[in-house]
Amino acid sequence: MALAYLTRRERFSAAHRLFKPELSDTENFDLFGQCSHPNWHGHNYELFVTVKGQVNPSLGYVVNLKKVSEIIREKVISKLDHKNVNLDVDFMQGILATTENLAIAIWRVLEKPIRETGAELHCVKIKETENNFVEYYGD
Amino acid sequence: MALAYLTRRERFSAAHRLFKPELSDTENFDLFGQCSHPNWHGHNYELFVTVKGQVNPSLGYVVNLKKVSEIIREKVISKLDHKNVNLDVDFMQGILATTENLAIAIWRVLEKPIRETGAELHCVKIKETENNFVEYYGD
Amino acid sequence: MALAYLTRRERFSAAHRLFKPELSDTENFDLFGQCSHPNWHGHNYELFVTVKGQVNPSLGYVVNLKKVSEIIREKVISKLDHKNVNLDVDFMQGILATTENLAIAIWRVLEKPIRETGAELHCVKIKETENNFVEYYGD
Amino acid sequence: MALAYLTRRERFSAAHRLFKPELSDTENFDLFGQCSHPNWHGHNYELFVTVKGQVNPSLGYVVNLKKVSEIIREKVISKLDHKNVNLDVDFMQGILATTENLAIAIWRVLEKPIRETGAELHCVKIKETENNFVEYYGD
Amino acid sequence: MALAYLTRRERFSAAHRLFKPELSDTENFDLFGQCSHPNWHGHNYELFVTVKGQVNPSLGYVVNLKKVSEIIREKVISKLDHKNVNLDVDFMQGILATTENLAIAIWRVLEKPIRETGAELHCVKIKETENNFVEYYGD
Amino acid sequence: MALAYLTRRERFSAAHRLFKPELSDTENFDLFGQCSHPNWHGHNYELFVTVKGQVNPSLGYVVNLKKVSEIIREKVISKLDHKNVNLDVDFMQGILATTENLAIAIWRVLEKPIRETGAELHCVKIKETENNFVEYYGD
Repeated sequence: MALAYLTRRERFSAAHRLFKPELSDTENFDLFGQCSHPNWHGHNYELFVTVKGQVNPSLGYVVNLKKVSEIIREKVISKLDHKNVNLDVDFMQGILATTENLAIAIWRVLEKPIRETGAELHCVKIKETENNFVEYYGD
Repeated sequence: MALAYLTRRERFSAAHRLFKPELSDTENFDLFGQCSHPNWHGHNYELFVTVKGQVNPSLGYVVNLKKVSEIIREKVISKLDHKNVNLDVDFMQGILATTENLAIAIWRVLEKPIRETGAELHCVKIKETENNFVEYYGD
Repeated sequence: MALAYLTRRERFSAAHRLFKPELSDTENFDLFGQCSHPNWHGHNYELFVTVKGQVNPSLGYVVNLKKVSEIIREKVISKLDHKNVNLDVDFMQGILATTENLAIAIWRVLEKPIRETGAELHCVKIKETENNFVEYYGD
Repeated sequence: MALAYLTRRERFSAAHRLFKPELSDTENFDLFGQCSHPNWHGHNYELFVTVKGQVNPSLGYVVNLKKVSEIIREKVISKLDHKNVNLDVDFMQGILATTENLAIAIWRVLEKPIRETGAELHCVKIKETENNFVEYYGD
Repeated sequence: MALAYLTRRERFSAAHRLFKPELSDTENFDLFGQCSHPNWHGHNYELFVTVKGQVNPSLGYVVNLKKVSEIIREKVISKLDHKNVNLDVDFMQGILATTENLAIAIWRVLEKPIRETGAELHCVKIKETENNFVEYYGD
Repeated sequence: MALAYLTRRERFSAAHRLFKPELSDTENFDLFGQCSHPNWHGHNYELFVTVKGQVNPSLGYVVNLKKVSEIIREKVISKLDHKNVNLDVDFMQGILATTENLAIAIWRVLEKPIRETGAELHCVKIKETENNFVEYYGD
């Protein structure tokens, strides 16, 4: 038996804004800087989903990569791509649209369907720009 | 004398939407697909500005790259980064926020200040995603 | 009116081999080196298709990017991805499977359907590895 | 003393196919999809080998990077580059040519020669496409 | 509560040389190869600083990314960018200018100011070229 | 007959400094900013050499890519990699070490040996950082 980690990259282009609704625009700017801009801004987000599991001796893989891709597209990308993270995404309602919170929310959405493939979710990584990324391991 | 081309890359993260205000959401979707989403989406845009000119025999360069970068940041990036292309950008008012129109508008904004450096604007290239980019040469 | 260039990147993973069927393996190795390996090798090819045209004043784009992508996928990618360039691809039959010949053949396949969109094919670029690429402009 | 991790990237372009020889083409397609294509396909694989060890106080490095590169090229790249993973590679005989199995096999090939440099093999990572990669840590 | 990892990339272009001052050029070449070249060479280094911490429930992030970037720029980049690692950098005096030693020295410089933000330094990664990088986790 | 363009990327890591020897350090700083730093700095330069020519109907390529790579390595890379552009490179003696001048000098070095392969040198492009590059077409 051998334990391997398989990572799939998917992408989504979305608008978002960092702000607390109970604060004024000025107060939000003090907390979140230009990321609080009231008219939104956006990113080409890159999502890296890592699953781990024993390599199936008969099939030679941890899990069918195509299946992993389909789960991510159905549960995550279809809800985020060409959308507004704050306004349109059911699993981000009432949550500050930071990269950290997005990674945690995506973990919660993916954990069960990934487990049903026989693998285990290991890491959700989101690259917001070429200079910033966040990783969440479920802890 | 030698003619060289110098390219500077700058980046901006912005929200936008493709739509015609006189049309309904459904009609805009028929024309522009998911890019017409009413709640906006966004991108990490990469902007490549190419200038050309004779290499200055005394200084060894076409133009001071730092000066080119400052012009692009002052005239373009400061207006687009962490902003909404449709709502916030003076030189995009009344213009469909396509990558083509953005490249043409940026050309018009940069042409004169680049000429004042002694070089000539050659190309404005905008990469919207890793799979799409537009080039405009002033024609 | 304004003339702009729009580029779409698509990818395909394919096997190929450089060889002349009338030569021995040794003779082919002398001509093509390790690229002539009889058991095939392969690449993640990146294909960049550039079209040019006037920006439509009403729609703000040269041509619908989604339409360009669909043409490339139907005419080119569906025939090359996860295939053998030498054995499986109708438009490469009887042609040495070099990057140059692949670019020329893809130009011939795309020229007419791109023209039917109202734009004009400008360049077919194929990146074979991170260190090598070929461009063909129809001349 | 300080424990550091050193990673070397090497590349190989190879053909492969996912299939079980005891099954028909149709059955293999059901299991492995287009990756089972009988005429092969291929990739530009990127291999990342991470070694760990105490930083040598006199030399300032974990291990001579050039030595690590030479080991990888001799033991792995020379056998895979411009080759067919299924047909040509001694350490992949009788093994399904998945990325997982390739990573495990490369680990087994590299573990001893890396140890002889004084460092320890930590991770073998293989990037098959820009969207997929596998990591193996020897467990 | 949720534990997340946040990574910031910063860059610096610097000259360096690997050598022991008590040795001759020939002896240094024997130890360090072309990296010992007496007239220096240089790199575009990429620095990835990863911090970890609980996601602040009120602000939705581990730590203000802008603050992390400012610390890295003030303490590290301002001392290394467009400089000579061997001659100009206070925290590298008397230390062999390997990537390993650079990562360890940057860790020591950043550990305290990162802790003062409320987060904890997790990893310093330095990419010297597209083929080589080093990671240090403080052990 | 068909005219194609073939590009080869090669890399070199080098130190350099922008300065005029007849000026003081302060005066050089006024002209060249931090690029004039007296103790040198450096870059991972990427060199893209584009050649053009008719595709050989018998061989399917413009020119043997391996031959192009060998010429570039022998004439250019061997002189620049792990070297100091100002001090070590014969074809840069007495020339300001800007990216423009480097591109022009490399053009002059490569023009004749490329012509002897039967192809024609079309462009020398040098990428100094991920944000800056220069192109020279021989004019």
